[in-house]
Amino acid sequence: MRDVAIIGIGQTPVGEHWERSLRHLAHDAVQAALEEAGVERPDALYVGNMLSGELTGQEHLGALIADFAGLRGIEAVKIEAACGSGAAAFRIGYIAVAGGLHDVVVVVGVEKMTDSPSEVITSALAMAADQEYEAGQGVSFVALNALLMRRYMYEYDVPHDAFAGFAINAHRNAAGNPNAMFQRPITLEAYRQAPMIADPINLLDSSPICDGAAAVVLAPADSELARRARQKHGLVRVMGSAIVTDSVAIHDRRDPLFLEAVFLSSQKAYAQAGVRPSDIDLFELHDAFSITAALSLEAAGFARRGKGTLLAMDGEISIEGRIPISTMGGLKARGHPVGATGIYQIVEVVQQLTGRAGPNQVQDARIGMAQNVGGSGATAITHILEALD
Amino acid sequence: MRDVAIIGIGQTPVGEHWERSLRHLAHDAVQAALEEAGVERPDALYVGNMLSGELTGQEHLGALIADFAGLRGIEAVKIEAACGSGAAAFRIGYIAVAGGLHDVVVVVGVEKMTDSPSEVITSALAMAADQEYEAGQGVSFVALNALLMRRYMYEYDVPHDAFAGFAINAHRNAAGNPNAMFQRPITLEAYRQAPMIADPINLLDSSPICDGAAAVVLAPADSELARRARQKHGLVRVMGSAIVTDSVAIHDRRDPLFLEAVFLSSQKAYAQAGVRPSDIDLFELHDAFSITAALSLEAAGFARRGKGTLLAMDGEISIEGRIPISTMGGLKARGHPVGATGIYQIVEVVQQLTGRAGPNQVQDARIGMAQNVGGSGATAITHILEALD
Repeated sequence: MRDVAIIGIGQTPVGEHWERSLRHLAHDAVQAALEEAGVERPDALYVGNMLSGELTGQEHLGALIADFAGLRGIEAVKIEAACGSGAAAFRIGYIAVAGGLHDVVVVVGVEKMTDSPSEVITSALAMAADQEYEAGQGVSFVALNALLMRRYMYEYDVPHDAFAGFAINAHRNAAGNPNAMFQRPITLEAYRQAPMIADPINLLDSSPICDGAAAVVLAPADSELARRARQKHGLVRVMGSAIVTDSVAIHDRRDPLFLEAVFLSSQKAYAQAGVRPSDIDLFELHDAFSITAALSLEAAGFARRGKGTLLAMDGEISIEGRIPISTMGGLKARGHPVGATGIYQIVEVVQQLTGRAGPNQVQDARIGMAQNVGGSGATAITHILEALD
Repeated sequence: MRDVAIIGIGQTPVGEHWERSLRHLAHDAVQAALEEAGVERPDALYVGNMLSGELTGQEHLGALIADFAGLRGIEAVKIEAACGSGAAAFRIGYIAVAGGLHDVVVVVGVEKMTDSPSEVITSALAMAADQEYEAGQGVSFVALNALLMRRYMYEYDVPHDAFAGFAINAHRNAAGNPNAMFQRPITLEAYRQAPMIADPINLLDSSPICDGAAAVVLAPADSELARRARQKHGLVRVMGSAIVTDSVAIHDRRDPLFLEAVFLSSQKAYAQAGVRPSDIDLFELHDAFSITAALSLEAAGFARRGKGTLLAMDGEISIEGRIPISTMGGLKARGHPVGATGIYQIVEVVQQLTGRAGPNQVQDARIGMAQNVGGSGATAITHILEALD
């Protein structure tokens, strides 16, 4: 198995791109990543996307984006794993390069959400849940997560205020990321007064509906392309890569408050990388809702059960803290263009590990982790990346 | 790169399964394939599917099917490439095993179409075309293919009757396949009198709306599992595997009557396999419409341009002919559950190469080709398989 490096990254700003269609966004990210990598024509394109069928009436994104990005003819398919589609596509690209089937692969995550009415978006997002046992009964995706949050608050006797630190940290970091959707800090007061979405999840517990695309180029770490990328802007290799699944419906899980897939995919990635949680310098986790951030920190081994929110209250998740999370704003404030998010996370880890995170730079960051979750925890995809000097 | 073998196959009958939901169909095919392979828990599950979001309100099929098929926890994602989704998923499974990332992989193609009203299905299928430049202008998917067929008839001065041989051959073969949707032969008279769908495509030029699932298990050809499969029911290895894309919109192609992606993916697969068209003993091609069969035969190198229909008129595509196609009924008569079709094709080639095709057995079949097409030719996925004694 070959060591795989990320030799180029690209991203569009996250936001409401009413003037750009899905294919334009994907084009921009793919071309930016290829240009940075110094690659004209990769061997394959893997597209992470969840909602293009529902929201734009377009499937077949592999061929569509390959063509529009100037790569007509290359191998191209779409990968879907709900909100984890981006990292799932990255995983497939990693498999293709690590196994030697391809030498240069571009992976793009793209989502175009804001052109649709909000009830259509709500119904589309519910396709991440179990249609027959959850969504079909009228439970929206945010409502499912609200059930988890309410249960968490009850079981561990945690007040709603305890989650504020996740939103405050995310927004503070987004202020330093020119590609983030919400580039402004928020206060505890604002968090307390935010309108309710699905009790107890309020507006500032939730990631936004948005558009965006991000891309990475993969090649063997010992290739000439990787050598050149290393000289030009620094190089990052993939130390660990794992996808683990769980039941889609929450009621089928052993314990709704323990994200078993997150736990297992973290453990697999740690084992492959030969590291422990204490070796991770920053963690781009899946803070689609503040409850997801708490549960992810616990399942990934950074906090004991029921204690995830303490990290946020004690400042340990800040850029200068013990385990910085959402360093460029996270899903909460950079934005969560669903199928693109997993690639944004990886792009941001690469920015950190190559010293290109600007005012948000985590000092001496050597090892970073990106974790993308599909549904309410049914798919967990963990990647551990390492800076190569 | 390791040689990859198909060590187990499974399929549900194709038809209108109003009593079974998508997850039940997928379960049945996955379990049948695992049982035949003698595998309890593969390393990963790759799901080929196009329409579950639009037609059943369910994405996230990787985790959903893994769980329902008794494989909770394993790596699982969905792969989409329009009508080529099944073979695209197979390709990803092949990459994972050939490259050594996984030792045993199960690939399932599944589609559940018949629960939806026909106008919803028509609109969902149009997502294989270009939404902005084709479908969004009101052209249905069958209408796009009708434009191709009309142009073909005009350019090459071919009458509609010339295409009858494809439908007659497919239905004759389906009569010998207990899993086919239409197990009855048809006559030339029936073809001539079939109701028009989109002039000149009539009902018997078209593959049907249907439900079904098919699965295969992949492992290294030199593994103990493969050795056992060889003794038990015969073994098949993958000689060639290629995905090539083209523009999704037909107007952007150099020549609408030449399926360039089909040509290039065939050539790549031939080159990897070290064979020529004359070495192929049977060809499961993508006869979604009779025009697609003709264009595929030409682009894959079995007929000169404009001469594809001659093969059907001369009986060369029959089981006993020079190049048998649609040997178990093809998309036309076995049925075309869109995202499942690519796996049905591969399952049928395996049946042929291991002497399990019953009354439809192609004598002394050693090398078979399966070709799955997405959209009106924008994605072409070719696999060449060889019997191992």
